[in-house]
Order: sequence, then structure tokens, then C-alpha cells
Amino acid sequence: MKRSIEDTPIVFIGAGNLATNLAKALYRKGFRIVQVYSRSKESARTLADAVEAEFTTALDAVVTNAELYIVSLTDSAFMQLLPQIVVQKEGALLVHTAGSLPMDVWQGVTSRYGVLYPMQTFSKLQETDFSQIPFFIEASSVEDADLLKKIASILSKKVYDSTSEQRRSLHLAAVFACNFTNHMYALAAELLQKYHLSFDAVLPLIDETCRKVHTLPPKQAQTGPALRCDQNVIDSHLAMLADEPQMQEIYRLLSDDIHRLANKD
Amino acid sequence: MKRSIEDTPIVFIGAGNLATNLAKALYRKGFRIVQVYSRSKESARTLADAVEAEFTTALDAVVTNAELYIVSLTDSAFMQLLPQIVVQKEGALLVHTAGSLPMDVWQGVTSRYGVLYPMQTFSKLQETDFSQIPFFIEASSVEDADLLKKIASILSKKVYDSTSEQRRSLHLAAVFACNFTNHMYALAAELLQKYHLSFDAVLPLIDETCRKVHTLPPKQAQTGPALRCDQNVIDSHLAMLADEPQMQEIYRLLSDDIHRLANKD
Repeated sequence: MKRSIEDTPIVFIGAGNLATNLAKALYRKGFRIVQVYSRSKESARTLADAVEAEFTTALDAVVTNAELYIVSLTDSAFMQLLPQIVVQKEGALLVHTAGSLPMDVWQGVTSRYGVLYPMQTFSKLQETDFSQIPFFIEASSVEDADLLKKIASILSKKVYDSTSEQRRSLHLAAVFACNFTNHMYALAAELLQKYHLSFDAVLPLIDETCRKVHTLPPKQAQTGPALRCDQNVIDSHLAMLADEPQMQEIYRLLSDDIHRLANKD
Repeated sequence: MKRSIEDTPIVFIGAGNLATNLAKALYRKGFRIVQVYSRSKESARTLADAVEAEFTTALDAVVTNAELYIVSLTDSAFMQLLPQIVVQKEGALLVHTAGSLPMDVWQGVTSRYGVLYPMQTFSKLQETDFSQIPFFIEASSVEDADLLKKIASILSKKVYDSTSEQRRSLHLAAVFACNFTNHMYALAAELLQKYHLSFDAVLPLIDETCRKVHTLPPKQAQTGPALRCDQNVIDSHLAMLADEPQMQEIYRLLSDDIHRLANKD
């Protein structure tokens, strides 16, 4: 009987937001997750339970007979644990999931390696629909790139080859498009809370701002006092932020930068 | 025969993004727009043609027998033109559409006045669905507030009373939730263009970032290197932005501020 790709025994090293969502998505598609490692027993156990896997908090107790190890740690934890992670895993394919780390961090420490980078913001609190998430793939051999692409294609329609350089650029852009965008929402929420108004009031605006850039380049979609050079409004807003110096600085810097971009080209 | 509310003769003073979308929406609901004023002949004519109205570029040629004047100008143009706008309009209801201007800018210069503030980002290039847009209403009398609420309710399900103070706060929050958010998209687009990558690559991420804050408070929805204190990644990103000093400053300031907020409370 021919073995299907879903039978590839997989170990997750890491049980954070990305690992949790990726492991659950693979599990739901029928993949076999054999073990989950995390430094935190609670994280390891929670994810392992969800995907019917074993768990461990000791790297030297990670099984050595899996075929794919998906390592999803912070960049600094990854670099620190890398020498221990690769021990006795020659023959297996080892991948990390980071946008920011080049593939060649694996070079010289193991023989089959790669990167499986799903560009998305993950929360343990919310399960992610992977079907529209772009996956960026890189591997030390064409065969392993193909294997990773096959696996990613079971989760998503959007699977691309990507060099480390491209992935690094995408990741930087993603910080602006996601983390910094979310921080703008968070600052709006802080202000509304201060004024005893509901965050729900700005949700239609947030939705429309997002919707617009599907059909207009963001530069063309821009509106508001900074773009209109409406100095009365800008000064009044800066005055309202007088007791929030960091928010005031952000307001000033971003308003200046909206000008810079509008006058470019 | 009883006259319906849609027969109220309306004049638009201003033909910018907000005026254009609001006038078209009212027109589609059967309202009678009699005239459009704009300093720019092209803007005045374009909007007037779209809503079967007359147009003028001279404030002293604005008809004086309309019942509702909707003034939608930049705050500074509004304050400058206000004395001319009110001439011979005693008896009519005059409203502005600005989040930032208090209602009492009308006080002492005319007798029936108010504010009709639809909190949304408008572009002439895209027609807006008003049904989910919150309208914030204020007027010099209960009767005129009721009239404005009736009109707004024909366009939207979300019509609220609002003091000038609340509107001013909402508008400041809206600048963060919309204009600054859109600027984050614009910076992501700039970076992707620089690296010869398509902006489409980050759209799923932008959508998910928006979708998440419908169910999680933005502070809880946050992810990424700044929240994780992943200094390796932050330093590498700052190095990539070395030739974009303004973007580098934004990256640093927002990363610091994500920390500030995470450690608050």
C-alpha cells in the first residue's frame, strides 16, 4: 500500500501562535503529528492534546525517527537551541517557519533543511483558515522543496518559491502591514476608552480602510487632515494628545510622513 | 399631498470626497440636490452632473431658497468662508460634516444649524455603501436634530446623537484607525515595490489583521517581533531601513510603543 504524504511523521519544536495554528491545520488535514516540544509544559501539553501527539519539555527527549521537524521559535531561541535541535536528526528534513531568518542558518549543522513560512498573524485564541495564506518555501534540495510545497498545497492555494532575501523583505513589509497596523487600532482603542466611547464605533472605518486597498494603491486611498494639509485639525489633535507624549510624537511623525509620501514621484 | 422628507431641497457647499459620496447617496435615495458649489469648476460640475443639480463656483450665486445646506469643506476653508456661506440663509438649516469642528462655530452667525458627521474614509474613485456607516448628529434644536436623524436613517442603520466633544474624540481615534493605518499599508507597499514584490502578497495579512479586531481587542490581537521582544529581528529590520531614515524612525517609535502598551495595566 502506497504511503500518502499525510503519513509523514512530523515533530513540532515550539508551541507558540504559529506552531499551534499550523499543527492544528495539518492535523485536521490528516497529518500525523507525533510529538510537540516546548520549554513551557503547559504550551507543549495543550498543543499535543489538540493534535493527539506526545509532548516533551526536554530537547534531548525529542524523538529522532520523525521525517519532518518543524521548528517554530523566536529567532533568538532558535539560534540558541539550534545545536541541540539537530542532534541525531541526520536523514530527516528540518525546517524553520521564520520570515526573518535565512535558510543558511541550517547550513553545516544538518544536511536536509528548508523554510516553510506562512505569512500571517496567528493567535492561539483564534483558529486560522489557511486556505488564503501565502506560503513561502525554500529548501536545500529540489526534492525537499517539492515535498514542502506538496504539504503546503494541502493547506493553501497560495504556495510560492522564495529566496531568503525575498522572505526577509516580505517579513519587514508584513510588520508594517500587520503589527504596526494593529498598533494603530490599539491606539484608537486606547483613545476611545479614555473618552468612554466604544471601539465598535470605528470598526466600519477599519473595514473600509482595509477594503479600499484591494482596489486602490494605498497611496491613492489616503484621506484625512494630514493629506489635506488641514493644519487647524492637526494642531487641534496634537493639543488633545498633550498628556500622551508618545502618541503625540507618533501623530506628528506619521502626519509628516503622509506628506513625504504624497509629494514623492 | 403630503411632502416627503426626500423633497427637502438640498444644496451642497463643497464637492470633495465626502460631499461627493454623500450627495450621490442622497440622490440615489430620491433626495433632491438643487445645487453644488465648489471653488473648482471641474469638481462642482462633475458632482452636479452626477446628481442632476445646478453648479456654481461663486458663493454669492448659491441659491437662498433651499431648506438644507450641507457644508463639506476643509476646516480652514470652512472658517474662512463661513461669513459668506450664511448670507441670506436665515430660516434654512445649515450643517457641516466635520468630525473636528464643534457645532458652535455656527453660533451667532445663523439661527438653525447642526452637524451631520458620517465617520468614514471617502474617495471620489469609489462609491461608498452608507448602510453600515455611523452618522453622528448634533443640532441647535431638537426638531432639527430629528430632521437630520431622519435623513441619516434613510442612508444608514447607525445614527447616533453626539456632542461636539464626543465627535472630536471619535475623529482623533479615526485618524489612527484609518489614515495612519492606511499609511502603514502605504509603507508596506513602498517596501514591496523597492524589493520588486507585489502588494497583493500582503493582502491576506491585511485582511486577517482587520478581521481579528472584530473579536479580540487590538492589544490582545498583537503579534510580531516588537511584542515578542525579538531584538535580533528588530535590529535586522532597522538595518534594512538604513537608507530610509524616516521609515526607520517610524519602525523604532512604533516598536517602542507596542512595548509601552503591552506593559500598561
